[in-house]
Amino acid sequence: MIEFRSRSWVLLSSLLVLVLLGGFLITPFKHGQTPVDYSSKHADVYKSPRQNVWAELTASEAASVNEYIFKEHASLNLTKHPKSGRDNFIFGVETLKPNKTDTISYLYNDGPSPPERWAKAAIAQNFDDGPYMAYYMVGPLPITEDSVMLPLEYIFNSGRNYVKNPVQDWAAIQDFALAMAENVSDITQELLGATANRADPSDPHGLLAFPRPSRIETGGFTLWMQFYRPGMGSNARTLLPQGIYAKVDATSSDVTKWSVGQFYYNGVLYESAGDFRTALADPNFERTPANIDGPWTDTEDFESKPPGRELPPPVSIQPYGPRYKFDRKERFVSWFGFEFYITTAQATGVSLFDIRFKGERVMYELGLQEAMAHYAGDDPMQGGLEFLDTFFGMGKNAFELVPGYDCPAYADYLDVEFHQSQKTHFTPNSICLFEYTADYLLSRHTAQYSVTASRNTFLTVRSVSTVGNYDYTIDYVFYMDGTLEVKVRASGFIYAAFYTANNTKSEDEYGHRIHDALASSMHDHVINFKADLDVAGPKNDMVRMALEPITQSYEWDKPEHPERNTMHLVEYKVTEEAGIDWPKNSGEFYLVYSSDQKNAWGERKGYRIASGSGTRPHLTILNSTTLGDSARWAEHDIWVLQNKDTEPRSADPLNYFTPHDPIIDFTKMADHENLEHNASGSSYDGDLVIYFNVGAHHVPHSGDVPNTLMHTSGSSVKFVPHNFNDRDPSRESVQGVRLQLKGSKSGGFAGEQSEPSGDLKNRMNRRTKGPDTTKAMYFGATYDKGIKIPLEALEPSMEEYVSEEHGVTDLSYNGSAAGVWHRE
Amino acid sequence: MIEFRSRSWVLLSSLLVLVLLGGFLITPFKHGQTPVDYSSKHADVYKSPRQNVWAELTASEAASVNEYIFKEHASLNLTKHPKSGRDNFIFGVETLKPNKTDTISYLYNDGPSPPERWAKAAIAQNFDDGPYMAYYMVGPLPITEDSVMLPLEYIFNSGRNYVKNPVQDWAAIQDFALAMAENVSDITQELLGATANRADPSDPHGLLAFPRPSRIETGGFTLWMQFYRPGMGSNARTLLPQGIYAKVDATSSDVTKWSVGQFYYNGVLYESAGDFRTALADPNFERTPANIDGPWTDTEDFESKPPGRELPPPVSIQPYGPRYKFDRKERFVSWFGFEFYITTAQATGVSLFDIRFKGERVMYELGLQEAMAHYAGDDPMQGGLEFLDTFFGMGKNAFELVPGYDCPAYADYLDVEFHQSQKTHFTPNSICLFEYTADYLLSRHTAQYSVTASRNTFLTVRSVSTVGNYDYTIDYVFYMDGTLEVKVRASGFIYAAFYTANNTKSEDEYGHRIHDALASSMHDHVINFKADLDVAGPKNDMVRMALEPITQSYEWDKPEHPERNTMHLVEYKVTEEAGIDWPKNSGEFYLVYSSDQKNAWGERKGYRIASGSGTRPHLTILNSTTLGDSARWAEHDIWVLQNKDTEPRSADPLNYFTPHDPIIDFTKMADHENLEHNASGSSYDGDLVIYFNVGAHHVPHSGDVPNTLMHTSGSSVKFVPHNFNDRDPSRESVQGVRLQLKGSKSGGFAGEQSEPSGDLKNRMNRRTKGPDTTKAMYFGATYDKGIKIPLEALEPSMEEYVSEEHGVTDLSYNGSAAGVWHRE
Repeated sequence: MIEFRSRSWVLLSSLLVLVLLGGFLITPFKHGQTPVDYSSKHADVYKSPRQNVWAELTASEAASVNEYIFKEHASLNLTKHPKSGRDNFIFGVETLKPNKTDTISYLYNDGPSPPERWAKAAIAQNFDDGPYMAYYMVGPLPITEDSVMLPLEYIFNSGRNYVKNPVQDWAAIQDFALAMAENVSDITQELLGATANRADPSDPHGLLAFPRPSRIETGGFTLWMQFYRPGMGSNARTLLPQGIYAKVDATSSDVTKWSVGQFYYNGVLYESAGDFRTALADPNFERTPANIDGPWTDTEDFESKPPGRELPPPVSIQPYGPRYKFDRKERFVSWFGFEFYITTAQATGVSLFDIRFKGERVMYELGLQEAMAHYAGDDPMQGGLEFLDTFFGMGKNAFELVPGYDCPAYADYLDVEFHQSQKTHFTPNSICLFEYTADYLLSRHTAQYSVTASRNTFLTVRSVSTVGNYDYTIDYVFYMDGTLEVKVRASGFIYAAFYTANNTKSEDEYGHRIHDALASSMHDHVINFKADLDVAGPKNDMVRMALEPITQSYEWDKPEHPERNTMHLVEYKVTEEAGIDWPKNSGEFYLVYSSDQKNAWGERKGYRIASGSGTRPHLTILNSTTLGDSARWAEHDIWVLQNKDTEPRSADPLNYFTPHDPIIDFTKMADHENLEHNASGSSYDGDLVIYFNVGAHHVPHSGDVPNTLMHTSGSSVKFVPHNFNDRDPSRESVQGVRLQLKGSKSGGFAGEQSEPSGDLKNRMNRRTKGPDTTKAMYFGATYDKGIKIPLEALEPSMEEYVSEEHGVTDLSYNGSAAGVWHRE
Repeated sequence: MIEFRSRSWVLLSSLLVLVLLGGFLITPFKHGQTPVDYSSKHADVYKSPRQNVWAELTASEAASVNEYIFKEHASLNLTKHPKSGRDNFIFGVETLKPNKTDTISYLYNDGPSPPERWAKAAIAQNFDDGPYMAYYMVGPLPITEDSVMLPLEYIFNSGRNYVKNPVQDWAAIQDFALAMAENVSDITQELLGATANRADPSDPHGLLAFPRPSRIETGGFTLWMQFYRPGMGSNARTLLPQGIYAKVDATSSDVTKWSVGQFYYNGVLYESAGDFRTALADPNFERTPANIDGPWTDTEDFESKPPGRELPPPVSIQPYGPRYKFDRKERFVSWFGFEFYITTAQATGVSLFDIRFKGERVMYELGLQEAMAHYAGDDPMQGGLEFLDTFFGMGKNAFELVPGYDCPAYADYLDVEFHQSQKTHFTPNSICLFEYTADYLLSRHTAQYSVTASRNTFLTVRSVSTVGNYDYTIDYVFYMDGTLEVKVRASGFIYAAFYTANNTKSEDEYGHRIHDALASSMHDHVINFKADLDVAGPKNDMVRMALEPITQSYEWDKPEHPERNTMHLVEYKVTEEAGIDWPKNSGEFYLVYSSDQKNAWGERKGYRIASGSGTRPHLTILNSTTLGDSARWAEHDIWVLQNKDTEPRSADPLNYFTPHDPIIDFTKMADHENLEHNASGSSYDGDLVIYFNVGAHHVPHSGDVPNTLMHTSGSSVKFVPHNFNDRDPSRESVQGVRLQLKGSKSGGFAGEQSEPSGDLKNRMNRRTKGPDTTKAMYFGATYDKGIKIPLEALEPSMEEYVSEEHGVTDLSYNGSAAGVWHRE
C-alpha cells in the first residue's frame, strides 16, 4: 500500500521529470470507466468453495472507509484536496489482509464464517516536527457503530505506525528544480544544445532533470540532479543522461533554504555554477560529446525485411476454450488439481492465497514483497542509485496487457482496482490467466514396441509492472505434477550512465560503452517473494539434503574394492531462522517437509525449493551505504523464518523513506528464532515461512539497447513436489499418445531384439477397448476435426479497441498508453 | 563412433537382458526401407553456400570403404559374419570429421575446394593377447588408387588407436548367465515367485538379470548381477529390480572359467548359492517383499477424467510454413541471421558446425561429447553403477520423434543414417527443426502514450536419444538476438534400487522409498558438450568478469559519504587451460571475447557463457573409483582449452572399456597450457575451445514414477551475445506491435501526466506511412484473415502411418517402437 507512483513522490526517488509536480493534488478526478470483462468464454458459472477473504476493497467499501475516517476522525483535520505535505489527507485505503490465524477455521476446519474484514489506511499527517505518513486499521467492515480506527502497528517491527515524510512542499520543489535548470541554461545550451522547457516537459529538444537523493542521517537529503532528454518516440529517457550533474543541499525541511552547490561534468567537480561557467569560458575547456536521441532508441524496426519476416510466426490457439475453472468474482482458479485465490495490492501486485493441490495444502500465500535495483558507478547519479519499486507500486504500475502478445489471444484478462486519494482507480486487463502447451513434452519414453509422449501444458497467471523505465513480467506458473514456478523477466529501458569520453578510469569498471556518449551501469536486481509453504498442513520442517562425496567400504565390494570413492546423502535440518544461499555445485536439495504427514511409502511429504531459470542472485554489495537496513532480505538467497501474524511482509514501501530506520527491519524478523517445534518446551508451532529472491546481476551491453530482452533476463524459482504424492499425479491429467505396434510384442529397450510374449497386446487392448489394430492410443482429449480459426484468435484486432487520450487527467483510469486498446 | 547399442555389448555395461545375446551377428540383414521425406513445405529449393564437409558418409561411400578394407587389407583376415569376438570384422564406418585447420580455407577464405574426405573405421581385431577394437582412417574418398588405410592415432592422446576388448564370446556369456539363473531357480521361485524364461526374455512373469561390471586392473571383470522382471507394458525393467544379486568372477578371458560366487539378499551376503539355499531352508530366514509390476509402472492413464481433460490443450500452429531456409541435402539452415550445418555421429548424435550470426563467425562446432550417469548406493548393483552413454550411441539411439508431440506438427523432420556391420541403417524422422513462439515476449515497454511488444519466436533443432531406460531430449535453440542455448531434458525410467524392508541403514542415505519394494537411488547426470567458439573469428580470450563489493571514495560524494559501500567489475583473464565452476552468487560473467574485433563503441565483441535453466552440476564424487580417468571432464563445470586438431573430442566411447587407461584422457587435454597468445614468444594461435556440462543431481522421489518429468529435469547453458553487435539485432527480425494513442502525445513514463509536443505523432506517421488515426502499428508480418486449419496440423494422424513389426530382425531399419508411425 501507500505507493507513490504519482510524480510528486517520484521526484524524491529520482524517477521524476523535473518540471511536472503535484498533478494529482490539483487536478479534479473523474470517475473511471466501467471495467471491461474481456473474457466470456466460460459458459458455465463456476463458484469458488469459499469467499476470497484477501480480496481488494470494493469501491463501495473503500468509499465507506474514507467517509468513516473523515466523519468520525475530524480531529485529524483532514482535507480532501491537499495542496502540500503540510496538509493532512487520506493517501489511500486498501484491504488489510487478515491474519493467517484468523482464517484457519474458515479455510481448513469448515468454520462457518470468514474472518473479519478490515481496511488499512495510509494517512498523510502532520505532527509538530513536520509531515508523516501513518498507517491505520479501520474495521470491522462493513462500517457500523462498532467500527474503529486504530494505529496499525502490530505488523511493523519498528513498533511505529508512521514514517517521517521528508517531502513537504511539492510545488516549491518543482519551482526549485526548474529554477536550477534555468539558472544554468547558458551552460546547458552551450554544452548540450538545449535548455529546460517549462511549458512542455516532454519536448524532445528540452531538458529534464532527475534527482538521486542521499539521505542524511540528521534529516533531509542531499540531491544530485542529472540532466536528461525526454526521448522522442520510445520513452528512452533513461538512455539519455546528459552528463551535467548538480548537487543540491536539501537538508532543510524548508525548501526555500535549499541551495545548489557543486556541479560535475566530464569528470571534473566545480564548486558552484559560477566556477563551472568560468571554466567553460576557458578556450581549453574539455568538452565531451553529448548524448543525442535518434533511431537508436527506437523500440521498433518497421522497415527491415529479412527473409522470413514476410510470414507471421507460429501462434498458439485454444479453439475449445480454457480447461481451468474460474470464478471471476472471487478470483478463484481450479485447474487439474490446483486451486488458489488471486488478489492484488497497490505495492506488491498479484498475490496468490490458499494454494492447494489435489485437495492438500501447499501454500497459504505466495507473492512479491519488494523489487530492488541497486546500481554502482563513478558518477554522482549512478554511484548511489537504488530503487525499491513497491514504493512506486508494483500493483499500481501493472498496466494493461497487450492481447495476443503479452498473453495469448485466448487468455482471460482480469481488471484491477485500487483506491487512492479517495478515488477508485482501475486498470483493465492487467492480469491474465492462460494455459499454454510448451514446445517440449512433460514426459516421454521410447521402448522397443511402443513410444509414449505426454504434453507439457501449464497454467500461468501473469502481470507486468512497468515502473518508469523498467518492465517486470511476473509469472506464477502451475504444472500438472504439482510444481509451481515464480518467474520474473525484465524488459524495458535500462537506467544507463553518461559516457565521459575523457574519463580517466576504465569504462569497464562499472559497465560498457553502449553508444556514442552512453555507458551501461552495472546493477543488481533482487526481487523478494514470500512463500508461506504449508506442505500438507502448517507444521513443516526445512531440511538441507546434501549430496556429499564419501569414501566408503561395502561388504559386497571386497576384496576387489576395500573401499570405494562414491557419494551419499546427508540431511541437515535448519534449526533456527536463517538466510541460506544456493549451494556450491547445486549440491544441496532445499526441502520443506511436512512434520507429520507421510506418503504411502513412509516418506515425508515435501516440496523442494529448486532452481528454475537464469540466476537467482543476492546483492553483491556488502552493507550497502544507500540501503542501510531497508532491504536486508537481499543479502541471502532463501530465508526460513517462523511464520507470525505480526510479520506478514519482509518489507514496506515506506522503507524507502527511512532506510536507516525502516518501518520493517528484516533483520528483526530473521533473528535466529528456534525452528525446532518438536523440541520439548518449544513454543513454536511449526508453521514456517520462506522468503526467496529472484533477479539478476545485470551488466548491460550493446544488446540491451534499446530494451533488455526477456529470454535472457528471466529468473525463476520452482517449488517441486518431493514425495508429496505417492506417484506422479500428472499422469491423471495429461494429454498425450501411446503409439503401439500392431501385434503382440511387449516393450523391451528400444533397439533390442526379442520374441516377446503376447501379454502386452492383451493388456493394451484391455485398457483401450480399441480394435486389435489400434496403433495410436490417446489419453486426454485430442483434436478430431479441422477447425476454422477466426482472425481474432490469431491476431486480436486492436482496431476493436478505442484509441483515445483519456489518460492525462483521468487518474481514476490509471491512465497509461496501454489504455489504447481497451474495448469500446 | 563404435557404439554398442546391440545387446551383445550392452551386457557388459549392465543394460542387458540376460538371455538375449548376439542377435545381429547371426541374423541375416535385410535392406532398410527408403527414408521418408516428412516435410515438403519448402516450395523453393534453397541451396547452402557451401558443402557440408562434416556430413555423414553416404550409403555408397560407406559401402566403398567397407569394400576397400576387405579387398585391400586381406591381411586383417576379416569376416563379414563374425561368430564371436575372436573373429576379425568391421564394426562400423563413419565420417572422420575433417581437421578444423583443413576447413578454414574453404569456409572462410573463399578457398575453392573442400577438405579431403576421410572415413573412420572401427575394426574388431584379434592380436596375440586377445580381441581389440581398433580405429583406422580410410581415404581420401572417393576410393581411388591413392586411397589408404592408416591407424587412426592422432586424435587419441593415449597414443593408441586401439582398446582391449574384454568381451570374447558372447554366446558363451549368454549361456553362462542363463545357467546361473537356472541354477538358482529354486531360490528365485521361492523368494520372487519366478524363474528365468529361456524361451521368452520378455515374459513379464520371467526373470532377467542385468550385470554391473567392476573392471579389474589386472584384466577382466567382476560382475554383480541383479535379477529384474521385464515389466508388462511400459518397459519398466529398471523399476523392477528383484533384490537378489549374484557375484561372478569374470577375470578370466575364457568364459568357461568364470564362476558364480557370493549372493546378496536382504542385506545379507552369502558365500555361495549353497549357503544361500541353506539359509533359506531355515524357518527363521528373513524375507523381504518382492517388487511386483502393476499399473503403477504404466506411463499412461487412459481412464482418469478430471475436469478439463475432455478438452484438447492449446496447440501451436504455423499456417504459412516455416520462416527458415533449409537445404535438406546439405543440412544447412538459415534463420534470421543464423546459419549453420547439421550433422550426426553414431556416438554423439547431432552436432552443428560453422554457426554464424549476421555473417560473423560465432562457433565452429557445437555438439555433445559424452553423457554420464553415475549412481551410488549400498547394494551391489547401484553401489558401483555408471554409464557413459556414447558407448551405446547417443546417435544410434536417437529414434523416431512423435509428430505433434515431440515436436510441433509443422516441424521439419530429418532422417539419420549410420553404417554398422557393413550395412547402412537409418532412423527416419529422428531430428526435427521448428520455430516456436514462446508464451512470453522477447521485449516490451509500456510508456505513457505507447506500448510496444515483440514476440519471442525461436528456432529449435531437436533429437531424443533413448538409451535403454532413459530418454534425453537434446535441443539446440536459436534466438533472434544471436543467443544460442544448449538444453538437455531427461525423461524415461529411472534406474531404481531394490528396497530392502529390513535394511538397517537409513533409506534416505542414497534415495527415497518410492514403491512397495523400490527405492530411488541418487545419481549425477553430467553431460559434456563442446563449444568451439570463434567469436568474430578464431582468436579469442576467455575472461571472468567479476562483480565485487568494494568500499570506495568518490570526490562528488564528500563530505556526506567519505566512503561508500558499493560494487564494481574486476576482470580476470584466463591465462592457461583450466576447469572453472559456476561462481558463488552468480558473481562472475564468463565471457569469450574476440582478441581483435571490437564493436562500434570500442568494446570487444563477445559471447557470454550464461546460466540457462535448471542446474548445471559437476560430479559430486571425488576421484570416482568406477570412472578412473575416463571422464575427468565431469569434475568441473566449464573448461577452457587450446583448440587443436589432435584434440577434437573430450571423450571416446571406448573409454568405457578401459576407464583406468582411456583412449582419450581429458586430463591430458586440460593440462594447463598457455592461453596468452598475445604474449611474446607464445606459439599458441589464440583459438580456444570450451567444454561445458549440463545435467542434474538427481535424487528421484515418488513423482519420478513412472517417468522423470522434463519441466524439472531440464538443464541448459546459453551463449549470449555480449557487445557482439552494436545494438540489439533482434529488432530487425522480430514480429510485434506498437500501440500508439491517436493524437500528438509523446511517450513519458507510464502513469505520468504531461502535455507533450506533437513530435511523436509526426515521427510515427513518418515511419508507418499509415493514416493519422493509426493505432496498432505492426512490425513483421501478422495474420490478416481467419484460417481453416486441417486436422493434420492440430493432431497429426498416426493412422496415416504403417504399423508393422518390422523391427525385430531388420536392424537396417534401426527398429524401434517409434517406427510405428513411419509413413507408408
